[in-house]
Amino acid sequence: KINGTRLWDSIMEMAKIGPGVAGGNNRQTLTDADAAGRALFQKWCDEAGLTMGVDKMGTMFATRAGEDPDALPVYVGSHLDTQPTGGKYDGVLGVLGALEAVRTMNDLGIKTKHPIVVVNWTNEEGARFAPAMLASGVFAGVHTLDYAYDREDLEGMKFGDELKRIGWVGDEEVGARKMHAYYELHIEQGPILEAEGKDIGVVTHCQGLWWLEFSLTGKEAHTGSTPMAMRVNAGLAMSRIFEMVQEVTMAAQPDAVGGVGQVTFSPNSRNVLPGKVVFTVDIRTVDQAKLDGMRDTIEARAAEICEELGVGCAVERVGHFDPVTFTPELVENVRAAAERLGYSHMNLVSGAGHDACWAAKVAPTTMVMCPCVGGLSHNEAEEITPDWAAAGAEVLCHAVLETAEI
Amino acid sequence: KINGTRLWDSIMEMAKIGPGVAGGNNRQTLTDADAAGRALFQKWCDEAGLTMGVDKMGTMFATRAGEDPDALPVYVGSHLDTQPTGGKYDGVLGVLGALEAVRTMNDLGIKTKHPIVVVNWTNEEGARFAPAMLASGVFAGVHTLDYAYDREDLEGMKFGDELKRIGWVGDEEVGARKMHAYYELHIEQGPILEAEGKDIGVVTHCQGLWWLEFSLTGKEAHTGSTPMAMRVNAGLAMSRIFEMVQEVTMAAQPDAVGGVGQVTFSPNSRNVLPGKVVFTVDIRTVDQAKLDGMRDTIEARAAEICEELGVGCAVERVGHFDPVTFTPELVENVRAAAERLGYSHMNLVSGAGHDACWAAKVAPTTMVMCPCVGGLSHNEAEEITPDWAAAGAEVLCHAVLETAEI
Ligand SMILES: NC(=O)NCCC(=O)O
Ligand SMILES: NC(=O)NCCC(=O)O
Repeated sequence: KINGTRLWDSIMEMAKIGPGVAGGNNRQTLTDADAAGRALFQKWCDEAGLTMGVDKMGTMFATRAGEDPDALPVYVGSHLDTQPTGGKYDGVLGVLGALEAVRTMNDLGIKTKHPIVVVNWTNEEGARFAPAMLASGVFAGVHTLDYAYDREDLEGMKFGDELKRIGWVGDEEVGARKMHAYYELHIEQGPILEAEGKDIGVVTHCQGLWWLEFSLTGKEAHTGSTPMAMRVNAGLAMSRIFEMVQEVTMAAQPDAVGGVGQVTFSPNSRNVLPGKVVFTVDIRTVDQAKLDGMRDTIEARAAEICEELGVGCAVERVGHFDPVTFTPELVENVRAAAERLGYSHMNLVSGAGHDACWAAKVAPTTMVMCPCVGGLSHNEAEEITPDWAAAGAEVLCHAVLETAEI
Repeated sequence: KINGTRLWDSIMEMAKIGPGVAGGNNRQTLTDADAAGRALFQKWCDEAGLTMGVDKMGTMFATRAGEDPDALPVYVGSHLDTQPTGGKYDGVLGVLGALEAVRTMNDLGIKTKHPIVVVNWTNEEGARFAPAMLASGVFAGVHTLDYAYDREDLEGMKFGDELKRIGWVGDEEVGARKMHAYYELHIEQGPILEAEGKDIGVVTHCQGLWWLEFSLTGKEAHTGSTPMAMRVNAGLAMSRIFEMVQEVTMAAQPDAVGGVGQVTFSPNSRNVLPGKVVFTVDIRTVDQAKLDGMRDTIEARAAEICEELGVGCAVERVGHFDPVTFTPELVENVRAAAERLGYSHMNLVSGAGHDACWAAKVAPTTMVMCPCVGGLSHNEAEEITPDWAAAGAEVLCHAVLETAEI
């Protein structure tokens, strides 16, 4: 049995760092708040007797030694960075749930054959620097380190410079570590577990994703003195693309989503038709052919919409991962642990992307999910109960022990 | 004959202050660049022997004395502030054209019965602080000084604080001055004069305007794990409102325009459905009933669109002026001057709003327009020829002398 109170207290302690404006958190990656969150996590790891390693992406690896010097470690973790208006649990539960599992093993004097490494991946959210899951992506060999360092936020600041500024460029080569397995606990961020009244989601798959960043070029002109026939209206083209994305997504039901979260108008003045409109379409589904089909349809129809209005249309694919099938043996470990511990459970497809999606490329991997209130996430009002958190951490702990071998 | 070379040189000198990124200007109101532009204008006024007065809105009034101590002054001017990506002529031509008229009178030793006052109105553009034509609006009694001081830019900085910061809070009560008449020279900012091959626009009317600022409330949620049926999609509502504004405007043709220049998504993260979407619809036409009808239709249909999607919808009318009919006697002075000087001319309705629209509430008022290349304005590529500028300033000078009485 893990210590649910200690876990909850740690989550609440972490939530004090980078407070949001409405009860949640703004601890975006590579900000001063992120640095403060890392320092607190490091302190806890030291107290738990773990050995910290940091790689060149700033990812933190805290090791609990195993008994077999030749056995590869079992990695367990998630991320401490948040959205600009994020919740207290998204990512945090996975890191501190892993820490709680290790603290419990310490309390009970449990020794494992394989070392256990608690991980805090850098820039999982992708809010400040696209794409999401950036550090785990470099770890898995999907991105180069240079590519990651060159990512820019909306202010033009570079990932590499900001990582340096907060003092978390480690010395380990990214991806040099080899994993025996990777487990990640996360809140569902969707409505299914709560609606079905289940304690535990046994995650079998994860939806794939495309982030399509459209840059539309209109003609900057006066909103009052430019006749309708002379306009090159990039804002209107954008609105037609939004509606088209909605149509394409509805036609791909069930089990597909599409929407837009980020829009930038330039020069963004009330009486100037925009010269440039940039926005990112986010589409996801677990079916690879459907996902790529949606992408192709959206790109083709957007080009038509723009052509009709004389608007320039460029698309950059700024984020992507294929649908993931998690490792059946590990999935079975999670299911068996939930069963053994008496928690109700069901199979689940992860709607969000996670570091586990990239880890799955280089190691046997799976996830454990717990419900969240109203399925709400990426919202400061994100909420879970201490019982849900404890159940998730307990199942995680048992599944990890199965793989790490007592 | 005014000195066209001197006028052009002054315009080019002013354009060096607050340079843009593409050959135009970013000299937004109450920025350091605005302060530098004001200082240069003040220096030129001093050199021309004018007496400067400044009111509590920071509007600059440079007086050339008249011969009759009891005669009210003839005011002539425009604005030196620009859009964030503005041109070199929008506003500037009107202020420096007025200054050139006065310099010419000095050169030729012309004395007038009425004093002549060259005016630089504060915050005409409304780009940084809505509404546009703010200082002339306070001058005309349309807004209170408190209202103006409380206007906020997108960073939350207040007009009153910024005016103080750049050191241009004058001591004159706003609107205390009485005007014999007001003239304003401006580039057309539209395509008609160039297309018709005319040198001079004799401005008979100005379109009325509504700025409708919509604040849509959606539900911040994860773009990946929130099923389509659970979304409260403020971005989609926005796109439907854009399309509806386009429809309403096209149904109101000819002589009506409608569009959107400013959009803000919150939290503006690629994987978060926006909790808040704020944007401003700009609609204009010279027909009062049509203008208000468009406003009512847009507000009503926007409410329906939002209701259907469960999105919250609030509208604030952040800018407005009624269509204006300029003073026939002054309009005739402009036409007669153009005719006398041998410039081709035509009647014109101003598509853009101008300080003249508010001045018309408190004094006989009219405008002179000159062509601009491709009708392009509110764009750094805005362009005019030295000949067009000289013709406009010459017609302005002659019409002003008619009213100021030699
Ligand atoms: N779990 C999570 O919110 N990850 C961010 C990446 C994504 O958009 O799915
Ligand atoms: N002339 C001009 O661009 N004025 C700004 C106010 C408006 O939007 O018409």
